[in-house]
Amino acid sequence: MFTVGIDVGSVTTKVVLLNGRGWRYVVRPTGCSPRQAGHEAFEELLGQAGLSQDDISCVIGTGYGRISLPFIDKAVTEITCHARGAHHLLAGADMVIDIGGQDSKVILTDGRGSVVNFAMNDKCAAGTGRFLEVIAAALGSDVSELADKARGAEPVAISSMCTVFAESEVISLLAQGVAKGRIIAGIHRSVASRVAAMAERLGKGEQIIFTGGVAKNEGVREALSRELGREIIVDLRSQLAGALGAALLAREKPVRKEK
Amino acid sequence: MFTVGIDVGSVTTKVVLLNGRGWRYVVRPTGCSPRQAGHEAFEELLGQAGLSQDDISCVIGTGYGRISLPFIDKAVTEITCHARGAHHLLAGADMVIDIGGQDSKVILTDGRGSVVNFAMNDKCAAGTGRFLEVIAAALGSDVSELADKARGAEPVAISSMCTVFAESEVISLLAQGVAKGRIIAGIHRSVASRVAAMAERLGKGEQIIFTGGVAKNEGVREALSRELGREIIVDLRSQLAGALGAALLAREKPVRKEK
Ligand code: SF4
Repeated sequence: MFTVGIDVGSVTTKVVLLNGRGWRYVVRPTGCSPRQAGHEAFEELLGQAGLSQDDISCVIGTGYGRISLPFIDKAVTEITCHARGAHHLLAGADMVIDIGGQDSKVILTDGRGSVVNFAMNDKCAAGTGRFLEVIAAALGSDVSELADKARGAEPVAISSMCTVFAESEVISLLAQGVAKGRIIAGIHRSVASRVAAMAERLGKGEQIIFTGGVAKNEGVREALSRELGREIIVDLRSQLAGALGAALLAREKPVRKEK
Repeated sequence: MFTVGIDVGSVTTKVVLLNGRGWRYVVRPTGCSPRQAGHEAFEELLGQAGLSQDDISCVIGTGYGRISLPFIDKAVTEITCHARGAHHLLAGADMVIDIGGQDSKVILTDGRGSVVNFAMNDKCAAGTGRFLEVIAAALGSDVSELADKARGAEPVAISSMCTVFAESEVISLLAQGVAKGRIIAGIHRSVASRVAAMAERLGKGEQIIFTGGVAKNEGVREALSRELGREIIVDLRSQLAGALGAALLAREKPVRKEK
């Protein structure tokens, strides 16, 4: 029995194929057509596994682009899929912190993969990957380089929470000759403190897993860990948590859309 | 008896000189040194009037840069100065809506120039002049051209309140071929609705005066007027309300700093 989960995020589309023993996946940029990205990633994964669409008993879609996918059997919210997937990656995790390209969320679970409570920010770019992108551009860097450049640097205080005002602050810190590394460390702390505040309103997690595109940034992970006073685990596959959760739910509670 | 009010804003510095019969003023960019801008504008105005610093009985500073002015006798908050100055410009005004380069505020007064209540936003770039600057840049326009370009256009809906997300939305609306004028009209409405919400929390003003750099934008004035269902008066001198109020307070309650 094969099931598939497709997570169409604002930046990347993730597809996970699950069989009895293991899972495989494909990640690709969402680009400007979530529908096409979802479809192509799905076909690519089927091709790699030598399967056809008929071999798949259930396909669940999640992520902001899930509504654009005509071929899925069911759409499930990101929160539910994330919690389920994160539990598979780290058994016993009771909090998932997810920072994506344009939103951030914290999910408190029962430690068995079900959601107890959650908080989400998709209204304000501060505390999301977008904040890092804007600042990286102002620094003439790429987001992928931020963690390396900030390694070991003492964070400088960034007083503005707002992305736009923080960007100006960063430009004026640069003009004052403050080292880039210290500025970036300050920016990592800013993202972390915004998201940590959201986490603390939900209650303290004991086992925290950090997912989403920003989880690849070691500087943000460390800053989050410092803010929350907890170790925070990043599984290298953590950006797949949503798609994996969708595939797991497709196996546990299969539905089949009339076609 | 001469008094002076100096309003050091984030974008421009305004200095007003008051004598028994009338007032004159100087406006100049604040640049990166509020202290220098305040000092030079003050000297320039004294020079124009053929006065020296000793002829001035009291100098009151206001605006975010007031703390950088060593030569003032007293610093008074923007809110108090604005309310006082706006009342002078429009006798009977009981609400002042001020949208500046990086903040916005609404002041409810007693109609005689004293503050009853106020609300202020200086944390989020949305609903400030900064929002307009970011969007103008994305459209390849200058803020000063926005009102002209939007004249008569039906506003397009801008769903993101956040400056950063609205900027992306604007870029994608452009790519879809939506007319610039309609986009700008939508942006004017976005600023207006954000500030109108702040005004409505304070209660309805009967006589509203609109001040600050953004008051020069006729499109924002119209949108505000539509949102609040009230006529909104922009006095061409309204950006001077803070400095004028400071000079009036310097005349009414003079203090002299020991030097
Ligand atoms: S604070 Fe800044 S980043 Fe947040 S919503 Fe406002 S403009 Fe956007």
